Amino acid sequence: MKVSVFRKAHFNAAHRLYNPAWTDEKNSAVFGKCNNANFHGHNYNLEVKVTGEINPETGYVIDIKELADLIKEEVENRFDHKNLNLDTAEFKNLNPTAENIAVVIYNILRPKLKPALDLQIRLYETDRNFVEFPA
Amino acid sequence: MKVSVFRKAHFNAAHRLYNPAWTDEKNSAVFGKCNNANFHGHNYNLEVKVTGEINPETGYVIDIKELADLIKEEVENRFDHKNLNLDTAEFKNLNPTAENIAVVIYNILRPKLKPALDLQIRLYETDRNFVEFPA
Amino acid sequence: MKVSVFRKAHFNAAHRLYNPAWTDEKNSAVFGKCNNANFHGHNYNLEVKVTGEINPETGYVIDIKELADLIKEEVENRFDHKNLNLDTAEFKNLNPTAENIAVVIYNILRPKLKPALDLQIRLYETDRNFVEFPA
Amino acid sequence: MKVSVFRKAHFNAAHRLYNPAWTDEKNSAVFGKCNNANFHGHNYNLEVKVTGEINPETGYVIDIKELADLIKEEVENRFDHKNLNLDTAEFKNLNPTAENIAVVIYNILRPKLKPALDLQIRLYETDRNFVEFPA
Amino acid sequence: MKVSVFRKAHFNAAHRLYNPAWTDEKNSAVFGKCNNANFHGHNYNLEVKVTGEINPETGYVIDIKELADLIKEEVENRFDHKNLNLDTAEFKNLNPTAENIAVVIYNILRPKLKPALDLQIRLYETDRNFVEFPA
Amino acid sequence: MKVSVFRKAHFNAAHRLYNPAWTDEKNSAVFGKCNNANFHGHNYNLEVKVTGEINPETGYVIDIKELADLIKEEVENRFDHKNLNLDTAEFKNLNPTAENIAVVIYNILRPKLKPALDLQIRLYETDRNFVEFPA
Repeated sequence: MKVSVFRKAHFNAAHRLYNPAWTDEKNSAVFGKCNNANFHGHNYNLEVKVTGEINPETGYVIDIKELADLIKEEVENRFDHKNLNLDTAEFKNLNPTAENIAVVIYNILRPKLKPALDLQIRLYETDRNFVEFPA
Repeated sequence: MKVSVFRKAHFNAAHRLYNPAWTDEKNSAVFGKCNNANFHGHNYNLEVKVTGEINPETGYVIDIKELADLIKEEVENRFDHKNLNLDTAEFKNLNPTAENIAVVIYNILRPKLKPALDLQIRLYETDRNFVEFPA
Repeated sequence: MKVSVFRKAHFNAAHRLYNPAWTDEKNSAVFGKCNNANFHGHNYNLEVKVTGEINPETGYVIDIKELADLIKEEVENRFDHKNLNLDTAEFKNLNPTAENIAVVIYNILRPKLKPALDLQIRLYETDRNFVEFPA
Repeated sequence: MKVSVFRKAHFNAAHRLYNPAWTDEKNSAVFGKCNNANFHGHNYNLEVKVTGEINPETGYVIDIKELADLIKEEVENRFDHKNLNLDTAEFKNLNPTAENIAVVIYNILRPKLKPALDLQIRLYETDRNFVEFPA
Repeated sequence: MKVSVFRKAHFNAAHRLYNPAWTDEKNSAVFGKCNNANFHGHNYNLEVKVTGEINPETGYVIDIKELADLIKEEVENRFDHKNLNLDTAEFKNLNPTAENIAVVIYNILRPKLKPALDLQIRLYETDRNFVEFPA
Repeated sequence: MKVSVFRKAHFNAAHRLYNPAWTDEKNSAVFGKCNNANFHGHNYNLEVKVTGEINPETGYVIDIKELADLIKEEVENRFDHKNLNLDTAEFKNLNPTAENIAVVIYNILRPKLKPALDLQIRLYETDRNFVEFPA
């Protein structure tokens, strides 16, 4: 009897899309406005989904307060009010697209959760553009 | 050619989290503010997902008006403006966590729907905390 | 390592629900207010979900700008500010329920996307009623 | 000590923008897609704001249940699932722009409320376009 | 050159509507489901609006971090996960309608803000019912 | 008979809060995380409110399509996917707080609108923090 528990969080960050293996022309052609060398930014809205059995003693799959604290420590404190390209180890050599950010957040949180729990990340870059990992 | 149909509904209720097998100290340690003996409350937002084949005559998987009426009769009338712990049979002996409420709503609605239809419940306890059953 | 990418769009349209094989009485009994011969209308909110592998060069599953343009050309331009029953080829002989509209949009977009990409459509007819195809 | 009380409601309707004193060409030039002779439609979201003194016995400015019922009877029943141009007396000779619809709703509700209460209407034609009357 | 600054916050609480000067019958007739002796509850969403001149040195009307902290200490900590009728001094002898809660929050925050700043409270009891004070 | 017409728009930008007349220590103490030298960013959501008489021929206060185009040309094209501090003339010497951005947008749009129309700007920096000018 598995239930999924979701927790929303958010962080505000600057980024630019850029592939260092390409010329500036190709970067600009592929990434358009998102390639601006001076960066732009977003309010990233995050939904973390954790799936598992209900503990019959607590009625919880996971204590949502603990999940919220984990997201705060591991994700919000790391990325909030940061420049993803310049201020974070994760995106020094990885293009901070929404897809890659979602995978990075998954990889940060996965080892912090019990193996019996499944994890999925949904990340909103804007109200109209968002991603989910794993699919 | 299966389609899922979703209907949103809501109910406003009081509850407290509490395990009668535990001491007050343990209840308070585990459930924190949610253990308040005088209760607190939420606007519960419910999404009911029903999946099945499109009826070629109507173009419907299910008449959403009938689904809305069913949710009103079976869920909203039962839980709206109630104290889940004190006023409902379902949570007399079951801790009213979001997880358990979702399972209870599933069990209420499941026998009212044709067996060929699949059912999933999403329940928002707050805008930032929600659950889904079955996962 | 598959990721899903979502893009929201919308269109405002008139429609009525109607089965030409039925009498007016049966149409009215089954479809109620939605059968109004003079039509009513909705702000349809659309979420297009595309699932695939991240391209390691771009960090994209799909360029969301291209996806947005595709939705604009193929769906918004076709249905926005239209009467679905009278102005569109797709619903000349198909009842424009939310279910059928979602299937139609799927069938419009599917051949425009690479076969390796999976596609799912979510369509909101109102804030409280929505559908998903495939389920 | 005046307080404002707000109640949200909604109705789904078809309409077209059209000035019978103009040629078809001028109507099309001014109203663009909104002039479609076969109509289009919207989910109109309505916010009714009523301002007055708190009744010390009830703690209410107005019983929101009574306000909700009034809106249902006078506005939702009149306009929901209707073609504003063809099915309603109010817009037989009045162009159903968001501005005019808001004024009409104000004029419908104003005489139903006690003179000591102030009234304001906010009407969303889409999530991005809305109006308020009186300003 | 006055600007208004808004900060959203929220608290989850139980309450019942009740006038001790009335019989149970009258309480039930006037307040309906909201009179349930065992309480029900809401996710109260709060918007605090502070109006004043921009400080040319900071570009702020008020440091929104300080405003958020003030709301947390004075409002959220006082009312979150509480039974408004039983657990709070403010509603021991005052009916906790949305109107009265908004006035109470105004009276709590008003003396904590500089006299040159104007204050207005908007309180959502549900997504569809909300109030504003002062009007 | 004045009506207000609102149009929503948005832009995604990077910024930092910084007063060049202050030491780095004072900047950091006052602006905290928002002072990050490498910038952070937001999805700015904008609501433009225009108030005036309804034109009896069109039923419009202002053609919302023209208003939307004006906002796109004058605000979105200027600020979207930009670094407010580095890429814009407006914030070269003005701290890009939400308050100041709202005033700047007002000053950009005011001369583009007829004098008989009133203008107000609401700007969301996040879902929980927003400003309005004039108050």
